[in-house]
Amino acid sequence: MQLFLVSAGPGDPATLTAQARRAIESATDVVGYGLYLELLGALVAGKTHHESPLGREVERAGLALDLAARGRPTALISSGDIGIYAMASVVFELLDDRVNGRIANGDGQADWLAVDIEVVPGVSAMQAASSRAGAILGHDFCTISLSDLLTPWETIERRIHGAGRGDFVVSFYNPVSRRRDWQLGRARTILLDYRPPGTPVVLARNVSRDNESIRFLTLAELDCGEVDMFSLVCVGNSETRLVRTPSRPWVYTPRGYGGKPS
Amino acid sequence: MQLFLVSAGPGDPATLTAQARRAIESATDVVGYGLYLELLGALVAGKTHHESPLGREVERAGLALDLAARGRPTALISSGDIGIYAMASVVFELLDDRVNGRIANGDGQADWLAVDIEVVPGVSAMQAASSRAGAILGHDFCTISLSDLLTPWETIERRIHGAGRGDFVVSFYNPVSRRRDWQLGRARTILLDYRPPGTPVVLARNVSRDNESIRFLTLAELDCGEVDMFSLVCVGNSETRLVRTPSRPWVYTPRGYGGKPS
Repeated sequence: MQLFLVSAGPGDPATLTAQARRAIESATDVVGYGLYLELLGALVAGKTHHESPLGREVERAGLALDLAARGRPTALISSGDIGIYAMASVVFELLDDRVNGRIANGDGQADWLAVDIEVVPGVSAMQAASSRAGAILGHDFCTISLSDLLTPWETIERRIHGAGRGDFVVSFYNPVSRRRDWQLGRARTILLDYRPPGTPVVLARNVSRDNESIRFLTLAELDCGEVDMFSLVCVGNSETRLVRTPSRPWVYTPRGYGGKPS
Repeated sequence: MQLFLVSAGPGDPATLTAQARRAIESATDVVGYGLYLELLGALVAGKTHHESPLGREVERAGLALDLAARGRPTALISSGDIGIYAMASVVFELLDDRVNGRIANGDGQADWLAVDIEVVPGVSAMQAASSRAGAILGHDFCTISLSDLLTPWETIERRIHGAGRGDFVVSFYNPVSRRRDWQLGRARTILLDYRPPGTPVVLARNVSRDNESIRFLTLAELDCGEVDMFSLVCVGNSETRLVRTPSRPWVYTPRGYGGKPS
């Protein structure tokens, strides 16, 4: 009884690891958001598809556990890294609820705890954006989701202050949505208390997909009207630099040369 | 004139993306730390190897730029993600120095600015560790390198306080080395001011390599004597949970179910 939690990377199947590809190959059933399954093309052809709409994450995680518990090798697929703002946490939260008796012992659920789970990591949106732009994640960084659907805004704001005080490079996930339009502006205002208006910002949209766009801005120039739910916004720290080579600009954060073997 | 900055993942070649594999395949020359080239095995066979010891990062980056500028398609290879605490920043810093005249126009260097650079992202140590342990990176997180070889300790300490105040999950890179043995203990003491002693900690060593080990501890139990330079230490936030299923424990950070399409 096998469930693979598979990271599909930012979009282009070339960003999958060999391990992710093998996991998908060995599954009979694939579960995921329709658009992401589509991006995988031939890789998921011939498998039983269980597509589900946005926002039904708990249902999708439960379905994947059910399928695996019934003996069907299953791949639950997220874009980016499935362990980062994605489905892996939802699966483990369901298991936690089962172990602790918060979920009733319904049809098929008894066997969730017998499922073998393998989590397959992958390239998250911040890494895809950073690689296209240069190396903005080259030194200490943090990620903050601006979605306040299930996290109180006060918690998010405390994190933005923590990022500012700590001078972390910051990647904003879920910067805006149709219903959330002011959070990114507020985040920018907070960060401007801690770092200069000229701080480099990378605005990445649809990385490795059709209509990819990478824009280089400053923190002062960041106009939230240009950002949508397919965008990732990455703000440099006080040392992040833009360098204009003859062919193109790059943004990088110096790491200091010491430290880990590279 | 092509230079690929290639992420080799945590160790097992199955953690490379197809894009990374293709980049290496199209290079005649590979530049990297000997151990990491070894782990790649057949993938780098038949290519001209330029191994270099630890700690010679600037030299290694310059060599890779030189080779590419001389017309040899070259892959500069880092373990993990080359954009995260690794060689990509070093390359861009050298280019910055060239563009701004801080490096003299020596032999072969004139052409550095004509080199096409492609950065290929990959699985970083924190992602490998998180995937083996469950999903500890499931919500807002940060990374902090504890190496003070080139970053002042005051800056690092300010970041640990920022991480504590912001309640970020924290991945400590370069937690200890032969010459640095007290920094992790100090980091633990600071975090204990912000989060409970029972906070889950994942101690990951040699993930995806021989002798892989994953240990589950609490913040209070974290004994810095058990950590070495092949380890990554990941400390949960105030909501991170350990769940004991019949087969094994998992650690995850709940994401809240809202937000990005998964």
